[in-house]
Amino acid sequence: MKDGELTRTGEVMAAIRMKVASRALVSGDRLPSIRRFAATMGVSPSTVVEAYDRLAAEGLIRARRGSGFYVAGTGMPAMALAATEPSRDRAVDPFWVSRQSLDADPAVMKPGCGWLPADWMPNPALRRALRTLARADDAVLADYGSTRGSPLLRRLLLGRFAEEGIEASPDQLMLTASGTQAIDLICRFLLRPGDTVLVDDPCYFNFQALLRAHQVRMTGVPYTPSGPDMAAFESTLTAERPRLYITNSALHNPTGATLSPQTAYRLLSAASAHDLTIVEDDIFADFEPDPSPRLAALDGLNRVIRIGSFSKTLSASIRCGFIAGRADWIEGLVDLQVATCFGGPSPVATTLIANVLAGGGYRKHMEELRQRLARARHDMAACLEPLGIRPWLMPRGGFYLWCRLPAGQDSAALARMAVEENIVLAPGNVFSVSQTAGAFLRFNVAQSGDPRIVAVLTRAMNSQHAGKVLAIGK
Amino acid sequence: MKDGELTRTGEVMAAIRMKVASRALVSGDRLPSIRRFAATMGVSPSTVVEAYDRLAAEGLIRARRGSGFYVAGTGMPAMALAATEPSRDRAVDPFWVSRQSLDADPAVMKPGCGWLPADWMPNPALRRALRTLARADDAVLADYGSTRGSPLLRRLLLGRFAEEGIEASPDQLMLTASGTQAIDLICRFLLRPGDTVLVDDPCYFNFQALLRAHQVRMTGVPYTPSGPDMAAFESTLTAERPRLYITNSALHNPTGATLSPQTAYRLLSAASAHDLTIVEDDIFADFEPDPSPRLAALDGLNRVIRIGSFSKTLSASIRCGFIAGRADWIEGLVDLQVATCFGGPSPVATTLIANVLAGGGYRKHMEELRQRLARARHDMAACLEPLGIRPWLMPRGGFYLWCRLPAGQDSAALARMAVEENIVLAPGNVFSVSQTAGAFLRFNVAQSGDPRIVAVLTRAMNSQHAGKVLAIGK
Repeated sequence: MKDGELTRTGEVMAAIRMKVASRALVSGDRLPSIRRFAATMGVSPSTVVEAYDRLAAEGLIRARRGSGFYVAGTGMPAMALAATEPSRDRAVDPFWVSRQSLDADPAVMKPGCGWLPADWMPNPALRRALRTLARADDAVLADYGSTRGSPLLRRLLLGRFAEEGIEASPDQLMLTASGTQAIDLICRFLLRPGDTVLVDDPCYFNFQALLRAHQVRMTGVPYTPSGPDMAAFESTLTAERPRLYITNSALHNPTGATLSPQTAYRLLSAASAHDLTIVEDDIFADFEPDPSPRLAALDGLNRVIRIGSFSKTLSASIRCGFIAGRADWIEGLVDLQVATCFGGPSPVATTLIANVLAGGGYRKHMEELRQRLARARHDMAACLEPLGIRPWLMPRGGFYLWCRLPAGQDSAALARMAVEENIVLAPGNVFSVSQTAGAFLRFNVAQSGDPRIVAVLTRAMNSQHAGKVLAIGK
Repeated sequence: MKDGELTRTGEVMAAIRMKVASRALVSGDRLPSIRRFAATMGVSPSTVVEAYDRLAAEGLIRARRGSGFYVAGTGMPAMALAATEPSRDRAVDPFWVSRQSLDADPAVMKPGCGWLPADWMPNPALRRALRTLARADDAVLADYGSTRGSPLLRRLLLGRFAEEGIEASPDQLMLTASGTQAIDLICRFLLRPGDTVLVDDPCYFNFQALLRAHQVRMTGVPYTPSGPDMAAFESTLTAERPRLYITNSALHNPTGATLSPQTAYRLLSAASAHDLTIVEDDIFADFEPDPSPRLAALDGLNRVIRIGSFSKTLSASIRCGFIAGRADWIEGLVDLQVATCFGGPSPVATTLIANVLAGGGYRKHMEELRQRLARARHDMAACLEPLGIRPWLMPRGGFYLWCRLPAGQDSAALARMAVEENIVLAPGNVFSVSQTAGAFLRFNVAQSGDPRIVAVLTRAMNSQHAGKVLAIGK
């Protein structure tokens, strides 16, 4: 049953199902034209016709004579019709990488995932914190905790902010259930369906999944080695009047680039002229060898909202994020967190995190981790060089290498081949709003040590080079 | 500065600010008419005029000649203008109870809160689970975990469902970050702004806060001792075509009532005839002395989605909820959870919960707790009897008593007086969409043991009976 055409039809069907599931398309919306969607998906128009016909037969969409296909109003909720195929047949979209990575069994290698291997994390400190927590007051173990989250952790964070030049008062900070949830709360608070949101191109792929759930329009600005392309940024502000800009400045995901002081200043000036609010996601800040410019510090938490979490440096299992911003916004965000989560983040989680952060071992752990990652970045770049895969730049820190493939290679096709050999890659276009990063892959250098990864990549590239779109698993 | 009129003006202002903060009113919306809002708030029209004038002076709203007041389009986000007064001056609305309860310092008594005292929870078992967790694999401590959450906890839950007659396959279940977040995900998945949602009147107050965040219309059906008033339920389905019905069936919050088999059957038939989806929030199920009818069991998880959590019985600090429903809906909900939270619930949290649930101690703890609560319900009813405060019914289980006040008493006024004496009450109208429960208070019998509570209630009722709206704190 491994018929190439059938698989491609299935991919087009899955892509439309995901658009409906994610509400990018809702009941009554017109589907992309056959010609345009064929180009987007890199398939022939007849494949799209076949896919649309099958979806119409299923009742998900409906043809209207002479005017194309529309999402059906079936009386069923728009999102009830999510893809139900085995996940590997899904379109290679932002959800593909998340779900392949999160749900992979331990035998699967994940050079495309967004976190460190479990044994690179400060687990001895976590184990000590757990034993300490076993002796904590009943209230820490049993109660919801305050709406803004643990006062101890908030004090620790305010101290860290001050070291970075961000003076924030206690009413400008709240803890959240995770960094992603922090951005989600902000989007709920600031955005309405149909608003435009500016993102970097490329940007962290889950920004796109999240923004689609908010039914907003995304527009991208090319990212350069020193930050967003400011000419494009300014003309986009003028032409499209985005409400919000979401970015990472310290170590940009996926490129590893760092915002320059000049770009930071020009960016804030443009934001001020156009009344643009900025979410600065500083989740990788602790991976920097030395601090780079922070929009939040320049702006003084006026139009910049800073968010972060401890998932990348401390534990992704003990979820907790934070939001720092204007006091009146924080007050509204606290209400919204009560309405949608009831209470702040788990006192058990925040107590564990505060305990590890307060211990002297955390800074030492991060120092060693930065050195280990610097070596891993160089080793990985050296491994990829013979394949003609080259970093777009060598980042100052962190675990990502954003790499360009040799001419003629398509990263989504490589990802589909690699997953059949139990390797999850992160193909460029899942990060790109404009879908112009098909020649890139993001590597997580801490997850790429196994030599089978380069071996499978080599085979997949050769097979693609030979023009054969094969299922290379056995 | 404790001028009664000034306080009432402030309350009207706070109520409008909350409507804006919660998006019940957004930029360009017309404010309620002066006459109508005066009636709603129980104040004179001149108080509302004064409040609207002050809000207009602040720029939050704008008068249009001859056509009333409108929410201003200030270029600032609608929700940026949340109440910034000290929280006690806020309107007595659903957020009031949540935030007074969650942020109360330990000296404050909370007969209005929605959870057990910390020392009633199974803390010894939690402490053992924490020590066991300190020896867990690195992956449990450090990784995000799978998108549906801990397989072990899911297996345990499926086993418990089977005991209740709910046969669910593994793809019909996912874990979430909390019970509230479970409902939030479902609302995002099924609802669009402007949809109508049916709730019980009275219902759990945070359903209202949550539904307002989704910008949907709420409609209430009176709750009777055996479930919703079915004649009203059926005529509402016909007249208003709600998309969703959210309810608790086992031990209804706030009334403590239990759905009868006849009502359950008739309710499901009506839902089927009108293609209504039902969220059955079973968070109090383990407090039942013996199992009552479950919509999810009758319906077989077809149009009923079951949600729950462990916050009331095990720990509110270790947050984790679940959703059981149609497999295709769960698939879409998992994507939505990835987009908005990244990953499923914390493996640390789910491992702790699974460990406690799997231990034989949990059932024994719940048995003792049920007996302790039965005594506390009867003791509390006996304490309130001399004040003329009487339970609407005596619940089969749980920690709530929904009580009617003697004639002439207003529960919101009592709550405002009590909070000045460090007692948080839950006044009836925060539970009532139709605002017809002003003569009720919900008592949490496990949080009401302190004799000062009845003493303060007595004083406040006497002062109200004497027609004096006084600030009785010093």
